[in-house]
Amino acid sequence: MLKDPSRKYRAFPPVGLKDRTWPDRVITRPPVWMSTDLRDGNQALFEPMNVATKMRLFETIVRVGVKEIEVGFPSASQIDYDFVRKLIEEDRIPEDVTIEVLTQAREDLIARTFESLRGARRAIVHMYNATAPAFRRIVFNMTPDQVRELAVRNARLIKEHAARQPETEWVFQYSPEVFSGTELPVAKDVVDAVMDVWQPTPERKAIVNLPATVEMSTPNIYADQVEWMHRHLKRRDSIVLSVHPHNDRGTAVAAAELAVMAGADRVEGCLFGNGERTGNVDLVTLALNLYSQGVHPGLDFSDINAVARTVEECTQLPIHPRHPYVGDLVFTAFSGSHQDAIRKGMAAQRADAYWEVPYLPIDPADVGRTYDSIVRVNSQSGKGGIAFLLETGYGLVMPRRLQVEFSAAVQRVADATGTELSAQALWELFSEEYLVPREPLRYVAHDSRERDGHVDVQLTVELRGQRMQLHGRGNGPLDAAAQALGLPVRIDSYEERGLQGGSDASAVAFVELAWPGEAGSAYGVGVHTSILSASILALVSGLNRWHARAPQVVDAAFAAWTQRPAAA
Amino acid sequence: MLKDPSRKYRAFPPVGLKDRTWPDRVITRPPVWMSTDLRDGNQALFEPMNVATKMRLFETIVRVGVKEIEVGFPSASQIDYDFVRKLIEEDRIPEDVTIEVLTQAREDLIARTFESLRGARRAIVHMYNATAPAFRRIVFNMTPDQVRELAVRNARLIKEHAARQPETEWVFQYSPEVFSGTELPVAKDVVDAVMDVWQPTPERKAIVNLPATVEMSTPNIYADQVEWMHRHLKRRDSIVLSVHPHNDRGTAVAAAELAVMAGADRVEGCLFGNGERTGNVDLVTLALNLYSQGVHPGLDFSDINAVARTVEECTQLPIHPRHPYVGDLVFTAFSGSHQDAIRKGMAAQRADAYWEVPYLPIDPADVGRTYDSIVRVNSQSGKGGIAFLLETGYGLVMPRRLQVEFSAAVQRVADATGTELSAQALWELFSEEYLVPREPLRYVAHDSRERDGHVDVQLTVELRGQRMQLHGRGNGPLDAAAQALGLPVRIDSYEERGLQGGSDASAVAFVELAWPGEAGSAYGVGVHTSILSASILALVSGLNRWHARAPQVVDAAFAAWTQRPAAA
Repeated sequence: MLKDPSRKYRAFPPVGLKDRTWPDRVITRPPVWMSTDLRDGNQALFEPMNVATKMRLFETIVRVGVKEIEVGFPSASQIDYDFVRKLIEEDRIPEDVTIEVLTQAREDLIARTFESLRGARRAIVHMYNATAPAFRRIVFNMTPDQVRELAVRNARLIKEHAARQPETEWVFQYSPEVFSGTELPVAKDVVDAVMDVWQPTPERKAIVNLPATVEMSTPNIYADQVEWMHRHLKRRDSIVLSVHPHNDRGTAVAAAELAVMAGADRVEGCLFGNGERTGNVDLVTLALNLYSQGVHPGLDFSDINAVARTVEECTQLPIHPRHPYVGDLVFTAFSGSHQDAIRKGMAAQRADAYWEVPYLPIDPADVGRTYDSIVRVNSQSGKGGIAFLLETGYGLVMPRRLQVEFSAAVQRVADATGTELSAQALWELFSEEYLVPREPLRYVAHDSRERDGHVDVQLTVELRGQRMQLHGRGNGPLDAAAQALGLPVRIDSYEERGLQGGSDASAVAFVELAWPGEAGSAYGVGVHTSILSASILALVSGLNRWHARAPQVVDAAFAAWTQRPAAA
Repeated sequence: MLKDPSRKYRAFPPVGLKDRTWPDRVITRPPVWMSTDLRDGNQALFEPMNVATKMRLFETIVRVGVKEIEVGFPSASQIDYDFVRKLIEEDRIPEDVTIEVLTQAREDLIARTFESLRGARRAIVHMYNATAPAFRRIVFNMTPDQVRELAVRNARLIKEHAARQPETEWVFQYSPEVFSGTELPVAKDVVDAVMDVWQPTPERKAIVNLPATVEMSTPNIYADQVEWMHRHLKRRDSIVLSVHPHNDRGTAVAAAELAVMAGADRVEGCLFGNGERTGNVDLVTLALNLYSQGVHPGLDFSDINAVARTVEECTQLPIHPRHPYVGDLVFTAFSGSHQDAIRKGMAAQRADAYWEVPYLPIDPADVGRTYDSIVRVNSQSGKGGIAFLLETGYGLVMPRRLQVEFSAAVQRVADATGTELSAQALWELFSEEYLVPREPLRYVAHDSRERDGHVDVQLTVELRGQRMQLHGRGNGPLDAAAQALGLPVRIDSYEERGLQGGSDASAVAFVELAWPGEAGSAYGVGVHTSILSASILALVSGLNRWHARAPQVVDAAFAAWTQRPAAA
């Protein structure tokens, strides 16, 4: 049994803000978003990102529409330093985007920080020092007065450094560290003192950030803390009030929303809630929560799958299948009554009316996804589901999103026949859907050659019976085959493995293809004793399935081939 | 860009409860917990649980200490029906646990529900019907009066059925379905009418459950809705007021907490937040949130890893590495300054004082876990982390929790030498830690034989140089080897794969071992061309590592061997 916690832990003390106003407020415009994916998110990864990965994620964050991006802690990490230099020297920062860097309140680190930013058009310098009692006592052995003096001294240094680099438009940011655990009068005192140094004005504001570095209380108490600061800080009209919630108690999204109702102007967080320990608040969920309330978040998640796959690749951490808006299962209904209500809701939904489909908080098409109804083939029979039958009967282990996709085909058959499907019937359906050669595109043969770190593929296909030879070069054989096909399609995921327990040693390859401008994705599957042939068959299978879904779009892309000379 | 949502979505209307009291309340005792893992959690799985899996999860939920458990929807599923019968007929329900079943408000389903419960000592019958406007209009075409009449008619039926089975102590529960989307006066009207039929008393209460089947608003509005019902319902003293939050907006935990502050007595949810779409509220996070505030939740998560692995196996869904309290990374610090603060906090922590260690909201030992500091070997050098170096250099793909564990060994060396570790140095360290034969236990040989669906293993080992022969039988070779060793150790996870890119075709096996009564887990690793030998080597490696950690405990277990006759 868990120990008696009453001697070891104590309740977080309430603020007692009796005249709080936030519970009556409704959010009518988005906060300023600040992404700390490349700093707080990066520092909690097994394998921190390198410069190339950081650049890829930076570009994704820019595309999403975030205008303030914390790009690193350049005085603590050479990679971060190099990355900041690359951004500036190669002019990678769009006009309307401002980079931000973090620094401790220490002379040498501040100097190095300004060095890293030399030549920037505009930049936010974010200084923090510890103000919470546990840190003052245990880690630094300082009084509140000493903590304030440390902050003031280094705030002055920052101002001086900035004055020496006048080519840059400087914005200053200060965080009393762990704000959520700091006595409110102490936090206000330090912040006011720092602002006395920086002298922000309504035209040229400073940012005051209130980090819940560790989430310590129910979110209403954090909201009270934020509203207290909002009402008591000096120079409030010259301050952008920012929050930085972590998710230790699983309530970071709520804490951010209530904090904005309590007066915060700005939210720092990460895409899909990456970050230290339990993560930073998830900016995607916050943005789409606003969207579902009729408020445009100013961010673009109209192709949320593409953003998700990039983040998964850069962080090497998965997104959970039940993650709001983006998880593989969240626009999915398994139960018959849910499926029925959703079907009726979809049918009744008029284009010009408010969205009102049962069980679907937003239209999945808005984020480039589709609604999936999952038929539970055998839930009544006790023999398990589609995936289970195909795995035990045919050694086929499907990726989860393919299971979702394939079950739509099963649903159609189950609806039409009204009977239960055997493992063999499921396998035949799967083969017909994914494996049997189809029109318009058929794979005929290929020839591949690897040298000097690249691969050349000669690919022979038939398009509506007309034979064509295509050539492609890539850094791997699948990449080269995709180059040979030369279509705008994008490979969102790829898996290949042995067909388990099969009598021959076949491999099965799965590719998930996205088509720019079209919602959702389509899988292609290929089976072959050669892993490369299996991959190419999967590509062709996926293209034919895209053709079935959007014939005009795909035909237009094929049409470009007729422009190419067909080598004999 | 996301479309303009202002024509398609609208803000959820506030309740406008100006005299709300919940923001000033603090939770001082736990709510009644109700687990719906076997119903709401089960209905959203690719492969719904069978009777055996349900029993396994039921027993885990009982062990955790939940006293009300929704075990299924017996009128809709034969498996659920069979499971309820098995629970009752085999007398599997402890004295202090009450089972609950769900039924729609329909005559035939209610009859079948009572049939399933025949002979139960005590049971909660949970009836729901749709009251929300979208359902009334789109799905059922009913007025609020018709909805109320339907509920009343079926509430009467339930009362009549109950009277005909007087051997059971009946508890009635009603849910106005999607409460979160129902006009408050309509919800109150239906609930009051149902209670007029059931006539609960303060001695014999009924349960009124207010499901946020779809989470539609910020959690403060849900709290206002709950407080409104709490204050307006008739017979409040005869009602257990219950909430059932889903997580569509990522704020279910906050919604449940604020709802309890607003007057709810009971919370329905699932372990680790399983359930439809984004899941039900996570009971584990709620319970440990209370714990960290000095309030005993009445639930036992002192070996949270064991609970987590069971749930993952039963649901076949992963728990995210950043999931509060249980995720692989949440008691982990990567950054040097965090590690330093935690080290100082641990050193300063007195046993009789309140817990006050920076960055750790609770003592990981309370939930059977350990604090892990991760050294980022090469974060300055740009060459990637430990896992990356071992993967690219030696084809070794480690499970994430092994990465956490191994990095403690790396940390010790890095701290001692103060230098960066090369891939070769890391591999040597890994070999020494996991692969090199060690004392006290050495693997010598084995002989295994499979027939009639079971496997016999003869295992030869040396314990401190003394040769012994052990025999074990199991349903697979690893199981049989573990039986042969006959130690109280538990295999929490097992993975095996080819050593990628190695010159020979070796397999590497990983076993994660837990020792009852001891916190945390230890990995063992084995490499061999035979996958079975690799597995047994991994077992032995793990046992020696447990011996290094807790020599007396493991020696006591070995001592039992000397009682056994050693066959030649």
